[in-house]
Amino acid sequence: MTIEEVIVTGEWVRRGGTPAAPSSGRLKPLGLKEVTLRPGFWQQRQETNRAASFDHIEHWLTTSGWLSNFEHATARQGREFSDSEIYKYLEALAWANDPALEDRFQAIVATLANAQDPDGYLNTNFGRPGQAPRYSDLEWGHELYCFGHLIQAGVARARAHGRDELVEVAIRAADHVCDVFGPGGIASVCGHAEIEPALAELYRVTGDRRYLDQAKLFIDRRGHQVLGDIEFGRAYFQDDVPIRDAKSLRGHAVRATYLASGAVDVAVETGDDELLDAVAGQWATAVARRTYLTGGMGSRHQDEAFGEDWMLSPDRSYSETCAGVGSIMLAWRLLLARGEARYADLIERTLFNVIATSPADDGRRFFYTNTLHQRVPGAEPPAGQLVPRAASSLRAPWFAVSCCPTNLARTFASLAGYLATADDDGVQIHQYTAASIDTGDIALEIDTAYPADGRVTVRIVRAPETPFTLTLRVPHWADGATVDGAPVAAGYVPVRRRFTAGESVTLDLAVRPRLTFPDSRIDGVRGCVAVERGPVVYCLESVDLVNVDFESIHIDSGSTLIDGDGDGDGDGVVVVTGRAGVPADGSWPYGTRGDGAGVAVEIPLRPYHRWARRGPSTMRVWVPTTD
Amino acid sequence: MTIEEVIVTGEWVRRGGTPAAPSSGRLKPLGLKEVTLRPGFWQQRQETNRAASFDHIEHWLTTSGWLSNFEHATARQGREFSDSEIYKYLEALAWANDPALEDRFQAIVATLANAQDPDGYLNTNFGRPGQAPRYSDLEWGHELYCFGHLIQAGVARARAHGRDELVEVAIRAADHVCDVFGPGGIASVCGHAEIEPALAELYRVTGDRRYLDQAKLFIDRRGHQVLGDIEFGRAYFQDDVPIRDAKSLRGHAVRATYLASGAVDVAVETGDDELLDAVAGQWATAVARRTYLTGGMGSRHQDEAFGEDWMLSPDRSYSETCAGVGSIMLAWRLLLARGEARYADLIERTLFNVIATSPADDGRRFFYTNTLHQRVPGAEPPAGQLVPRAASSLRAPWFAVSCCPTNLARTFASLAGYLATADDDGVQIHQYTAASIDTGDIALEIDTAYPADGRVTVRIVRAPETPFTLTLRVPHWADGATVDGAPVAAGYVPVRRRFTAGESVTLDLAVRPRLTFPDSRIDGVRGCVAVERGPVVYCLESVDLVNVDFESIHIDSGSTLIDGDGDGDGDGVVVVTGRAGVPADGSWPYGTRGDGAGVAVEIPLRPYHRWARRGPSTMRVWVPTTD
Repeated sequence: MTIEEVIVTGEWVRRGGTPAAPSSGRLKPLGLKEVTLRPGFWQQRQETNRAASFDHIEHWLTTSGWLSNFEHATARQGREFSDSEIYKYLEALAWANDPALEDRFQAIVATLANAQDPDGYLNTNFGRPGQAPRYSDLEWGHELYCFGHLIQAGVARARAHGRDELVEVAIRAADHVCDVFGPGGIASVCGHAEIEPALAELYRVTGDRRYLDQAKLFIDRRGHQVLGDIEFGRAYFQDDVPIRDAKSLRGHAVRATYLASGAVDVAVETGDDELLDAVAGQWATAVARRTYLTGGMGSRHQDEAFGEDWMLSPDRSYSETCAGVGSIMLAWRLLLARGEARYADLIERTLFNVIATSPADDGRRFFYTNTLHQRVPGAEPPAGQLVPRAASSLRAPWFAVSCCPTNLARTFASLAGYLATADDDGVQIHQYTAASIDTGDIALEIDTAYPADGRVTVRIVRAPETPFTLTLRVPHWADGATVDGAPVAAGYVPVRRRFTAGESVTLDLAVRPRLTFPDSRIDGVRGCVAVERGPVVYCLESVDLVNVDFESIHIDSGSTLIDGDGDGDGDGVVVVTGRAGVPADGSWPYGTRGDGAGVAVEIPLRPYHRWARRGPSTMRVWVPTTD
Repeated sequence: MTIEEVIVTGEWVRRGGTPAAPSSGRLKPLGLKEVTLRPGFWQQRQETNRAASFDHIEHWLTTSGWLSNFEHATARQGREFSDSEIYKYLEALAWANDPALEDRFQAIVATLANAQDPDGYLNTNFGRPGQAPRYSDLEWGHELYCFGHLIQAGVARARAHGRDELVEVAIRAADHVCDVFGPGGIASVCGHAEIEPALAELYRVTGDRRYLDQAKLFIDRRGHQVLGDIEFGRAYFQDDVPIRDAKSLRGHAVRATYLASGAVDVAVETGDDELLDAVAGQWATAVARRTYLTGGMGSRHQDEAFGEDWMLSPDRSYSETCAGVGSIMLAWRLLLARGEARYADLIERTLFNVIATSPADDGRRFFYTNTLHQRVPGAEPPAGQLVPRAASSLRAPWFAVSCCPTNLARTFASLAGYLATADDDGVQIHQYTAASIDTGDIALEIDTAYPADGRVTVRIVRAPETPFTLTLRVPHWADGATVDGAPVAAGYVPVRRRFTAGESVTLDLAVRPRLTFPDSRIDGVRGCVAVERGPVVYCLESVDLVNVDFESIHIDSGSTLIDGDGDGDGDGVVVVTGRAGVPADGSWPYGTRGDGAGVAVEIPLRPYHRWARRGPSTMRVWVPTTD
């Protein structure tokens, strides 16, 4: 087959492409030309991504030598997975699909194409003179992981733009993977999942079932101890238990969410409901027992992994930015497959409290981890110098393991794809921000200052002659929501009628501060309360406190909450009441019970995603109660 | 100088040697022939160490190839620091000083002597053909660390037995270190402290001031960024801040306590009170803010390090066994220097709750880490196979990093040295267990079933004609203690008179269960209570629960405590009251406050040091209260 014959993306090119395009499922994604962000919380961040982060990333890919690794056979720079950062950047550029960026996109692609071996193999860390042989270290070598990101970039390019050289490179790489790891080949998997969703998506782009079969093979192989044991145990790369038998997401959080995403893709394309049920069950358990209030996943620094159930101490929360990306990939796929609001709920929570937290306002510094409790103010990372991945409480320009900046870049570039879907009956709006939606038959304008304000107005710009259903998600926290004044419960609210251009549907979500208490089994936050406002988690930051001892602050568990937000930027203060004092220091911190003394104080909190933007500080999301 | 000229240990050989022998300070140590353990809690463990652990360790040192590394120039086995395990084992044999073990001791020493280079260098991992050059990796190479343990073994041998080949090997190594790292030499330090106390102790043994000067040089160099930066930051090996300026123990917990021990040695020998004050202050801060209830130190798995102040989550507590050993080394040195009871208090706590916890009853399996909360029952490590250091909740026979078994072996072998001291005015008893003490002028018999029972009878076997002071430590937890019926406060209680043979002094410590509450700043155990009984920390273990949901147990914060112990083995049960139920599982674990439902239950707890001896289980030291 020639590439022209197998590319089946013509329709998606017209619609601008979309991050995951299952061929069946409850809901159908919309294209990036069908949903346009307008000025608001997310458009601002998407614009910073395009205007600043792209340049920043390319600067670092260049100066770090990771890009020139493709040009030089010797003196390779960077970690074994650095190729993937170039691919994720290309994916971001592909989604942005901006003619002004086309030259730099093509320059990088030409470099890759030139470096690719005749048999399709492409990796700067293996197989060259003086390097280890290809596939000699499947546990840690990341070769298939890198291919996965290359293929994802090719998929993005094919969907958003159509056939070109990157797509050819990706297809050659995928063919190589199938040749080497297919039936009769190396009967193993990669230590870092990613090739699985990539191959399934390439099948969707090309129609070539070989890629889907290979993705399924990888999914089915893993869990049977095909990889060697490592210090962290095989659960680290999900090779401990077959995915059909696992009870929860586990091990390395990025690996876990990427693998589960690939499994959903395979399940949907092969009609494998058992596999889909298994992954949905693991997701539900992980969300109920292994997820931070922010939506962040991964409790352990040592192996960047999910902890055990209820192991959610805020002060060593890892909550890697990339795990947030992986969680959104997974929840989005489950949402498309099943159409349940809880998936969109978690996406919203993760977007506002992980994805929005990571980048600095200038788009040139990033959190790799997202702790929920900072005990000691961090030091500003040295300018122009890459830092270890989790060394600081301040955002850093680049990391030795710099997976997060490029992962954010591709997520922001494709963000519009996650806002809404369609089905035969109409349009579903999952995330609220100012945006325009145009599916051809239906055109909508969403006006809102969300999350600063809870009013969302959906104006009908164009409507068919026949009735359709406009479905609005009411988030699980939104007690007291109304649609056109009528009370509605959490979940999807269908509004079905024959709409006329110019009319509006108004959703009012009760965006106001609330106190949130944890399940009694989460030991790390027992006796604490958090403040949330709409989808936004708040935090206490030391820079907001004067003459109050940070460590001694306790919030009244029945506190009133004074809302200082609603001014449109989502950056306002919420004030609660509590007590603070100066704890007495003893020589030994265990003994009889303290007296809980202290004086009444008013305690200001601000959105967690805004923390550490005013210099070094201490911070906590969960604050002890006065009880 | 010949070795005969410099060995100044004749007096110590007569007294059986002692683990640290400062030339000045408030208290003077006694020798291992002056204090003899009699049947009881500690003698049983010391005997298991000698009768089983020594064989076990030698078996593993042999089969792992770590011992034969000294014989073969190629195909080296084990991690870069494996030489040190042989040295720690030799140190243990030296303290045991058992003629029945002499042949195996000499056989190993002959191997080392044969492997030592003419210039005194000795390391199986550097400098041979195909290996990296000597001192090419000070951050991670552990060469000076290994020399430190070699020298410590030599010191033990010199003090307990006198001059022999091991002492010569150690002195040659120390001379080499001084040659290479002395003034004008390599102006750096080792990534893992240990050479510092070793050289100071060798100075005490030999009288050769060059070793003390070199120890001081290492102490003074560190903290000035003489080592390269690493992912964990230079605090990991205490090279971030000079030890005179640091505010707390920090970084890798074993490194930190070894370094501080060496600093105390240098401070005492050079009369440097400023340095001694600095270390004492760091110790006090670390004990007040960075130490677990068990005395365990080190909160972080990733870098085996102290966390920040109040970072003491029980569920990822690292509390490495070796950090317990290091903590005892440090507190013992501070006790000798300053004579304050708090140092002996921490030693007691660490002995009963870290050191006693690690080894299995058979002396052939060990905890590397000592978690305070086990959420998922561990799997029995494979027999005969070494395991990663912290992979299991069950004791393992050997580890890839197997520092703890040999560290325990040398500690148990020299344990009697930590029980009592002397000064010009009499004898001080710091730790209570059945024992005989004979300083020449004074002979005492200590009878007690401690910690099962709180009565300690000190019988005078021999006394001088003149008055002396018998000083007894009353632990800080022992409210209501009496000496011969008279109430006494915590701290050192002096009993001064002219004693006559046959008379006794009786100390009654109120060993009964109590509830212990944490400082409100320790987030990881907020709203929880622990049970202690005398010096022993208790825990809740799932194998003691039938038809009660482990995760739902809450203890009444005003519970009565029923003491089922006092039968002599320190292994009895304490029963408290509380509530338990079956928590309802939701889809999201954060929201409104739960109702605290449940039914009244009686909750049995047992000594923490006994946990995981009845098969896999879940366990927690800190239990939520019903408040």
